[in-house]
Amino acid sequence: MTSDELSLLDTIHTQRAIRHYSDKPVTEDDLSTVLEAAVRAPNAGNRQQWRFVVIRDRETKRRFGDWYLRAWSATVDRMGDDDRASQPYRSGGELAAQMEDIPVLILACIEKGTGPPAEGLDTRGATIYPAVQNLMLVARSLGLGTVITTMHTQFETDVKSYLDIPDDFDTAALIPLGHPAEGVAFSRSLRGPLADVVFLDRWGRPRAV
Amino acid sequence: MTSDELSLLDTIHTQRAIRHYSDKPVTEDDLSTVLEAAVRAPNAGNRQQWRFVVIRDRETKRRFGDWYLRAWSATVDRMGDDDRASQPYRSGGELAAQMEDIPVLILACIEKGTGPPAEGLDTRGATIYPAVQNLMLVARSLGLGTVITTMHTQFETDVKSYLDIPDDFDTAALIPLGHPAEGVAFSRSLRGPLADVVFLDRWGRPRAV
Repeated sequence: MTSDELSLLDTIHTQRAIRHYSDKPVTEDDLSTVLEAAVRAPNAGNRQQWRFVVIRDRETKRRFGDWYLRAWSATVDRMGDDDRASQPYRSGGELAAQMEDIPVLILACIEKGTGPPAEGLDTRGATIYPAVQNLMLVARSLGLGTVITTMHTQFETDVKSYLDIPDDFDTAALIPLGHPAEGVAFSRSLRGPLADVVFLDRWGRPRAV
Repeated sequence: MTSDELSLLDTIHTQRAIRHYSDKPVTEDDLSTVLEAAVRAPNAGNRQQWRFVVIRDRETKRRFGDWYLRAWSATVDRMGDDDRASQPYRSGGELAAQMEDIPVLILACIEKGTGPPAEGLDTRGATIYPAVQNLMLVARSLGLGTVITTMHTQFETDVKSYLDIPDDFDTAALIPLGHPAEGVAFSRSLRGPLADVVFLDRWGRPRAV
């Protein structure tokens, strides 16, 4: 199946986190296509309070590799043995090490809110992460790999200072973008059954299907 | 073009916030398809720390309409005149009023984190909002309308109590799901030019394309 023939459902079901990339360049056309998809996402009041910094500069990518590695190491230190042995976490260090060689990093940013802080989750994420997901889905349909990362936010002040990001924006995700390394495939993702995570009308009540 | 033929890009470019719904039922099959898409989304460490409460009970939907209306009214009171006249906000009151008649509401929830609080944005959103976006894209491809709402989070404690949501989860979004009302179309979304929101290598530097 070529990428042109990939349906929405096939794209969604075969979006995998890609952590190993080839050095094949990402074209400006493909980059525009994924960014145009990003800004089609739903967002609060259609105020489009997102910004995307496309990073191709090697030194900047190397810095992000350093931040990622430091944050990832601290996270692994806090983990139990089971989590530490899991595939996503084993690959984290490898991702950090090759960050400077990945063709493009995209830093997604979101404007700070003005309302009262939410009691629970910060819902500004509802404006930026759907855009990130659009970007990643279209990348996958073009044969480009991505992985959503947030490790760099542990160095938010340093990152913002390095890239001249103003105080009224926060960073939300760093998304590596590139062709997958040889031998890395977009296989179907593995998930638990719906019944484990879907309820009907109130928490814990099974949905009869 | 039938929904079967809708490509990923067409789906993304014609995903509109639908705020008026018909009373045509949403089938359990379609509901399963959108939920299966949701749980394919990338998520931290593939721990799948999401839950989805499917709400079909009319009294519960009516409560969400009340919460939405109260939160929306408070938000509108804080707004400037320009924002208040904008289409998304005019429709807010109408959405609240008909909430109980919408076939399905889906409440997306995310487990609380254990790590230190982030300096900027709460990055748990990176695990739940891509799932919400998958759900909404697949709904749109099935001809079903959605709109991502977060107004109810202003009554987070009440919502959690009413639905028996445990302390270790937060709600992230309430997504109405149903066939669009007669005359409501999935037209192409309107957005500003990429050049306004995309930079190269550092904040404010234009990307030459």
